[in-house]
Amino acid sequence: MRVTGNSLGRKLGLAGLACAVVLLASAPARAEVSSETAFIFNTFSFLVSGFLVMWMAAGFAMLESGLVRTKNTATICLKNIALYSVAGIMYYVIGYHLMYTDVGSYIGTFGIFYNAGDAETALIAAGGDATPEQLAAVVDNGYSVMSDWFFQMVFVATAASIVSGTLAERIKFWPFMIFVVVLTGFLYPIQGSWTWGGGWLTEMGFSDFAGSTIVHSVGGWAALVGAVILGPRKGKFGADGSVHPMPGANLPLATLGTFVLWLGWFGFNGGSQLALGSAADAANMAIVYVNTNLAACGGVVAAIILTQLIYKKIDLTMSLNGAIAGLVAITAGPDLQHHGLAIVIGGIGGALVVFAVPLIDKLKIDDVVGAVSAHLVAGIWGTLAVGIFGGGDLVTQIVGIVAIGAFMIITSAIVWYVLKLTVGLRVDEEAEEMGLDKAELGMEAYPEFGHGSQSL
Amino acid sequence: MRVTGNSLGRKLGLAGLACAVVLLASAPARAEVSSETAFIFNTFSFLVSGFLVMWMAAGFAMLESGLVRTKNTATICLKNIALYSVAGIMYYVIGYHLMYTDVGSYIGTFGIFYNAGDAETALIAAGGDATPEQLAAVVDNGYSVMSDWFFQMVFVATAASIVSGTLAERIKFWPFMIFVVVLTGFLYPIQGSWTWGGGWLTEMGFSDFAGSTIVHSVGGWAALVGAVILGPRKGKFGADGSVHPMPGANLPLATLGTFVLWLGWFGFNGGSQLALGSAADAANMAIVYVNTNLAACGGVVAAIILTQLIYKKIDLTMSLNGAIAGLVAITAGPDLQHHGLAIVIGGIGGALVVFAVPLIDKLKIDDVVGAVSAHLVAGIWGTLAVGIFGGGDLVTQIVGIVAIGAFMIITSAIVWYVLKLTVGLRVDEEAEEMGLDKAELGMEAYPEFGHGSQSL
Amino acid sequence: MRVTGNSLGRKLGLAGLACAVVLLASAPARAEVSSETAFIFNTFSFLVSGFLVMWMAAGFAMLESGLVRTKNTATICLKNIALYSVAGIMYYVIGYHLMYTDVGSYIGTFGIFYNAGDAETALIAAGGDATPEQLAAVVDNGYSVMSDWFFQMVFVATAASIVSGTLAERIKFWPFMIFVVVLTGFLYPIQGSWTWGGGWLTEMGFSDFAGSTIVHSVGGWAALVGAVILGPRKGKFGADGSVHPMPGANLPLATLGTFVLWLGWFGFNGGSQLALGSAADAANMAIVYVNTNLAACGGVVAAIILTQLIYKKIDLTMSLNGAIAGLVAITAGPDLQHHGLAIVIGGIGGALVVFAVPLIDKLKIDDVVGAVSAHLVAGIWGTLAVGIFGGGDLVTQIVGIVAIGAFMIITSAIVWYVLKLTVGLRVDEEAEEMGLDKAELGMEAYPEFGHGSQSL
Repeated sequence: MRVTGNSLGRKLGLAGLACAVVLLASAPARAEVSSETAFIFNTFSFLVSGFLVMWMAAGFAMLESGLVRTKNTATICLKNIALYSVAGIMYYVIGYHLMYTDVGSYIGTFGIFYNAGDAETALIAAGGDATPEQLAAVVDNGYSVMSDWFFQMVFVATAASIVSGTLAERIKFWPFMIFVVVLTGFLYPIQGSWTWGGGWLTEMGFSDFAGSTIVHSVGGWAALVGAVILGPRKGKFGADGSVHPMPGANLPLATLGTFVLWLGWFGFNGGSQLALGSAADAANMAIVYVNTNLAACGGVVAAIILTQLIYKKIDLTMSLNGAIAGLVAITAGPDLQHHGLAIVIGGIGGALVVFAVPLIDKLKIDDVVGAVSAHLVAGIWGTLAVGIFGGGDLVTQIVGIVAIGAFMIITSAIVWYVLKLTVGLRVDEEAEEMGLDKAELGMEAYPEFGHGSQSL
Repeated sequence: MRVTGNSLGRKLGLAGLACAVVLLASAPARAEVSSETAFIFNTFSFLVSGFLVMWMAAGFAMLESGLVRTKNTATICLKNIALYSVAGIMYYVIGYHLMYTDVGSYIGTFGIFYNAGDAETALIAAGGDATPEQLAAVVDNGYSVMSDWFFQMVFVATAASIVSGTLAERIKFWPFMIFVVVLTGFLYPIQGSWTWGGGWLTEMGFSDFAGSTIVHSVGGWAALVGAVILGPRKGKFGADGSVHPMPGANLPLATLGTFVLWLGWFGFNGGSQLALGSAADAANMAIVYVNTNLAACGGVVAAIILTQLIYKKIDLTMSLNGAIAGLVAITAGPDLQHHGLAIVIGGIGGALVVFAVPLIDKLKIDDVVGAVSAHLVAGIWGTLAVGIFGGGDLVTQIVGIVAIGAFMIITSAIVWYVLKLTVGLRVDEEAEEMGLDKAELGMEAYPEFGHGSQSL
Repeated sequence: MRVTGNSLGRKLGLAGLACAVVLLASAPARAEVSSETAFIFNTFSFLVSGFLVMWMAAGFAMLESGLVRTKNTATICLKNIALYSVAGIMYYVIGYHLMYTDVGSYIGTFGIFYNAGDAETALIAAGGDATPEQLAAVVDNGYSVMSDWFFQMVFVATAASIVSGTLAERIKFWPFMIFVVVLTGFLYPIQGSWTWGGGWLTEMGFSDFAGSTIVHSVGGWAALVGAVILGPRKGKFGADGSVHPMPGANLPLATLGTFVLWLGWFGFNGGSQLALGSAADAANMAIVYVNTNLAACGGVVAAIILTQLIYKKIDLTMSLNGAIAGLVAITAGPDLQHHGLAIVIGGIGGALVVFAVPLIDKLKIDDVVGAVSAHLVAGIWGTLAVGIFGGGDLVTQIVGIVAIGAFMIITSAIVWYVLKLTVGLRVDEEAEEMGLDKAELGMEAYPEFGHGSQSL
């Protein structure tokens, strides 16, 4: 049997756990994991994996800070810390319920807030006086309620982080934040409920272990639709079809951001095992770590070789996006057990970026950091790869990709358009010229560094 | 029941553990955590949480590097790595004993060095030949001795890190380091013993889960007193009451530093549960993670909205300090179980920063990075909040705040004055003008980057 | 029984585990760690420690980015992410087998690829239907196969990272990458098999807990030999014996890189305990964490004091290398139990850097970032220290150092020479003058920052 995503992975974990308990009862001489021990492992795994994924917010912030121009750097820093904050609050206030509570086929409930529940509260309050029944009421859940919430919350923040980079250097701060509110409170959770909440896509057998489609393509679609509606930066595309390069201002920061994302991805994919309370869970998590790492390696190597062959110069930015694309591509199926396949899947992800970036430029869509290529294109590829290499049904995979894509295109187009027609999406030309840092924030990211020849 | 700090939290953990052992003895059919398993969980939790808090040293280094001017950047980097190093050695040589060994009401013992103890040494030496008694002698402690030391050590380093930012750009390196020696070897441990060592404040019921007062306000008081005695940077305050802005040179680094602190805070607060060996501990740790995160979210959002409303421009630096203030504010009571409250407490922390920073400017106290506002003001608020929202007695909370504040004001004033009157605290005017990097280190942080218009 | 691993530590771990199982069988009333629980702890320790060591790749990238000049910064970023990627693939394709599979005295087998094995695959596939026999077949190994692979893989990447800094600013990208292929696929694994694979050095009693010699000196030798063959940067050494300083362009990044390495080292040394499944393992891991930290503290303090005394100015770069040297020095014996000794060993490591850096300059060997001093010199010192302070036989330690040194000098000299005589190692003078970023990558790391007075 193969785990097919967050929700089935969860079932496997709980099944393994139940199994352990039964074995222990029937065969006391064997050395099994107790249910409370499994509960602690599962909970701690969510917390450790969760803080790794939280760290990805810093990765996006550094990647985007490094890839925008200095005049927009402070603004992109602000957007990144703001979107992470808003995502956390929105997912707490409304999102988690929509995604995970009493999900029907298409949506969960409209409850607000979320908490550890009576059983855990009672156990904690009882302290040393807790009864076996109080303990069992908690332990039977398999993991602590809020550790799961924490882990899921950092995922929604990741989806939002993807959007900020693409739309950098010309979108207004407040409309962007309103979009984040809608995305993290509603759009992401609703489509997420279809698969990880146990809705219609799970019933159909759609398999997306850690979210190539559910997280990365969702962020990618929102970014792509936003970029089309927002339009390119002034001067990016010439009337003659030429593309004016606007190189990132601080490539070591972009490199750092990529390493941060890579590190965080061990939590993203590894934690999506959703359990650590049995030997099978631990062994599978190790496999996930290895595949995650090797896919990123493949993405980097593919991008380096291809840019050397095509352009005769290696492109650092493309190589960084190659790593990310490799990671995105393996995310739908990091539990596949042939690691050579992980290198191939990641390598194809990295290659796709090398071709997608100029293609998107040719379409006159201005994606400042290449996020659409790395997250959407590679995300689709990774989800298809699960179908191609035997981890799921290819047609079902396509249904999932198309359904979620259609939902995101339509809903995010509506939100972007409403924002455009009401408060407006774009800073005025003068502000764009001057840079968003001075125009919207009244500050400079690097006030003391003189301006070189490429400064714009 | 509510845990009221590192030391009571510890008791809860051990109680849970004892409970587990008893239950296991009396009811062998139930699936409990064995005492050795709990020992490993508790120890590993200290190590993982400890490395996260160690990482905060890097966060402070980046935050402060980003918020000083280029001519003082290398010096602040040096101070940050030096203070972390000195803090570790001083806490090893003397501090830990003062804080945790045979604490009476007001101070521990004056032993030097610290080690794993005979029981652990014997167990490790015995290897596979260890007797059940040797194992029990170790396991009965609940956690490994040095894992606790490691976790406590990174806390003292945090307190010291707070000081360096406020006093940047004009304090001499060596007097600053002498202050760090006294702070980390004596001042911090002595006041720490009152609560976490089990001294008079614990007896009175003072509640500070992870150190809003014991760590953050302590660092904040030391910084504030130092800033008053040291005086402002040349040119910071005009004779006419004007405040001359001296903007930070590298805001992406400051943003990175804030994200690092945020990440590290999961260890800071989560690890202060002091145990992971029972379901109750794990569940409570998850609650702590969630509240820590949501409080920071609240701090960011409050600072963004307030700076938009008050100044019509969002201030990135203020937003970063909003995150930190939110984190500081929740640190006294992150185990409160209504997460909405965490958003409120953090949000008020963030709001306080927005008002405290200009107020401190008005008092002509020059706090280069805003640490007094973020750590002292928000730390007091967070400690009061525990009393206000039912996690402790408000009067007792005030007693703790005042007692620790008075102790820190008096002792750090003495140390700063003695340093001022002997070796001198401040670089001379020429050195301050030239920058500490050239004057004290003979180097530049960014030797190749030209100087822009705001360069000073 | 499988792999002998980081060897003595591993044996201790498995012994503890076996002990636990035996005790449990004979004394069911005692509260032991079950074998499956131990399996999960051991596996999770590898994963957590492994992601920390992976993070060191980012540390090297930032350290080196900060210490080269701006015109070579993008290239060093590229090399760092590329070498980590290639190391992972090569260790997967060939290296791990050479180091750990059926090792004779001098080398393992020539198998390709590596995977979790039939037992784990079967257990995972069985899910809730797994039989006790299936579980036992996995659990008896003590840890999951791929978690060990992951942990060992990040070590080989560390060895490769050491090389890139020394040779920066004049080596061509592709020949460097070919060297990395050979180093990570063959040289590192072959010499690693002698000790950690259970070969002749282990039989002789050579002791290197986490790789002062096996990882750090190996990287250092490869770098030193490369630097000699490659020659110094143009203008570095005057005909009159003068040394022209070429200061690093971004010292906050170098500081960040050092903190990242420090953090990662907790995984490097702590994870080399190779087990967490018993109280003894956990206690020893805590001791390792503390010694690792204190040695780095000692290295920083020694470098600060010495540069103050010798040069009358503290050198930030030297202090950062002092931290690294302290960490390298303790790596061979971080399980020694007197923590004061760790400060001394680390302090001597830091002091050695202060003397080694000018000495290597005097020899007209151009080590751009000081990696030979920090990794090779301190690595030798740390390995000797184990013999001096009672953790092993001094003569045997010397034999290990010399044997591995001789192997690395000879083999890496051959590889570097072959590369020099075939594809060439060095960019041409014009490219070196212009900077590798423009010459090899066609881009700039900081395109907008103007060039200051020290710009070259």
